Amino acid sequence: MKITIIGATGMTGSALVAEALRRGHSVTALARSAEKLATLPANPNLTTKVQDAFTLTAADLTTTDVVIDAFATAPSLAFQHVDLATRLVAELRETTHPRLVFILGAGSLQTGDDHHLFVNDIAKDPNAASFLSIPQNQLKELNFLRDVDNVNWVGVSPAANFHAGAATPFLVGDDELLVNANQESETSSGTMAVAILDEIEQPQHHQVRFTVADK
Amino acid sequence: MKITIIGATGMTGSALVAEALRRGHSVTALARSAEKLATLPANPNLTTKVQDAFTLTAADLTTTDVVIDAFATAPSLAFQHVDLATRLVAELRETTHPRLVFILGAGSLQTGDDHHLFVNDIAKDPNAASFLSIPQNQLKELNFLRDVDNVNWVGVSPAANFHAGAATPFLVGDDELLVNANQESETSSGTMAVAILDEIEQPQHHQVRFTVADK
Repeated sequence: MKITIIGATGMTGSALVAEALRRGHSVTALARSAEKLATLPANPNLTTKVQDAFTLTAADLTTTDVVIDAFATAPSLAFQHVDLATRLVAELRETTHPRLVFILGAGSLQTGDDHHLFVNDIAKDPNAASFLSIPQNQLKELNFLRDVDNVNWVGVSPAANFHAGAATPFLVGDDELLVNANQESETSSGTMAVAILDEIEQPQHHQVRFTVADK
Repeated sequence: MKITIIGATGMTGSALVAEALRRGHSVTALARSAEKLATLPANPNLTTKVQDAFTLTAADLTTTDVVIDAFATAPSLAFQHVDLATRLVAELRETTHPRLVFILGAGSLQTGDDHHLFVNDIAKDPNAASFLSIPQNQLKELNFLRDVDNVNWVGVSPAANFHAGAATPFLVGDDELLVNANQESETSSGTMAVAILDEIEQPQHHQVRFTVADK
């Protein structure tokens, strides 16, 4: 398949590029920095493109089968997570192609016996103040997407601790924060990439968010 | 003040143009149809502009003090109510100027002892099937706006029956569908225009939706 990855040089994006190429897909890696794009390993199935994702139009998007939004930004600009989602959706209203895959944070997952939002727990951690706007805005992004019924989208959230690392066997859930048998709530970038490529190749979720965690 | 009105030739838009000019404001009337714009009464304080609102940029918007979104569209394109709001917000993130005024439907108001959404009542009326997508999407528009905390916006909903007509004395509420002493739930376009111009001249609401009904 033809897969376009927004934010291709980030932790998640670069893992997605590697996994998609490993499976033989044709990948267009999009990023704002030519320097960072140049660090992606060369591959005959890889095209790199320096482009601000906010300039993507329907004409750009419909040349590809899947668009993965792995956009990352500074906490002071966290609202751009929402704005990029609203833009991609607006460009693709009343279409089923391409499929849009949004990588959302863990904050919008539910946890505990009362199923409270995990972002409320993050907000209680003083160390999280500097980046709290990111999970808050990824929750807003999901709120927006949940009202979208005429675009082919799916969302994916990692577990509480999302970090760079190789893929492991993994758990899949819906809207509840996952923990493994050791009560750890971890997702590696490699696991995220495998789970997303699995979902792209064999769709199991439609217009919902699912979550993955290292087993 | 400088007031830009999107959808200036519609029922609400034309009433807003008239009321804003009556109060001496400088009005830019925006619409897609030059023919319809030409029907607005000439006035030295009125500028008409043929422009698709989806092409408005921050550069266009920041030349004005207030932008009123009185956009209307066909029920088959009702999602454009959401998309225009997301676009205007994205263009104006982290600003307080201009102020954005969104005209929302009555469907997102609450009604009854159980405070259910009025759109649920509309959905039960077989005659409403042809236009139900409009209140449904104006509810989604409000859902989106309620998550926006870094743009200077306000929303306004009419009562159940929103119709062309002269201004009357009126009631103002928050999120509950209003009825007058005769149990009528009506808002004329003239009342809507007066209420919005009052709000523009003396702001009473910030980042919330309010509602107005003929007394």
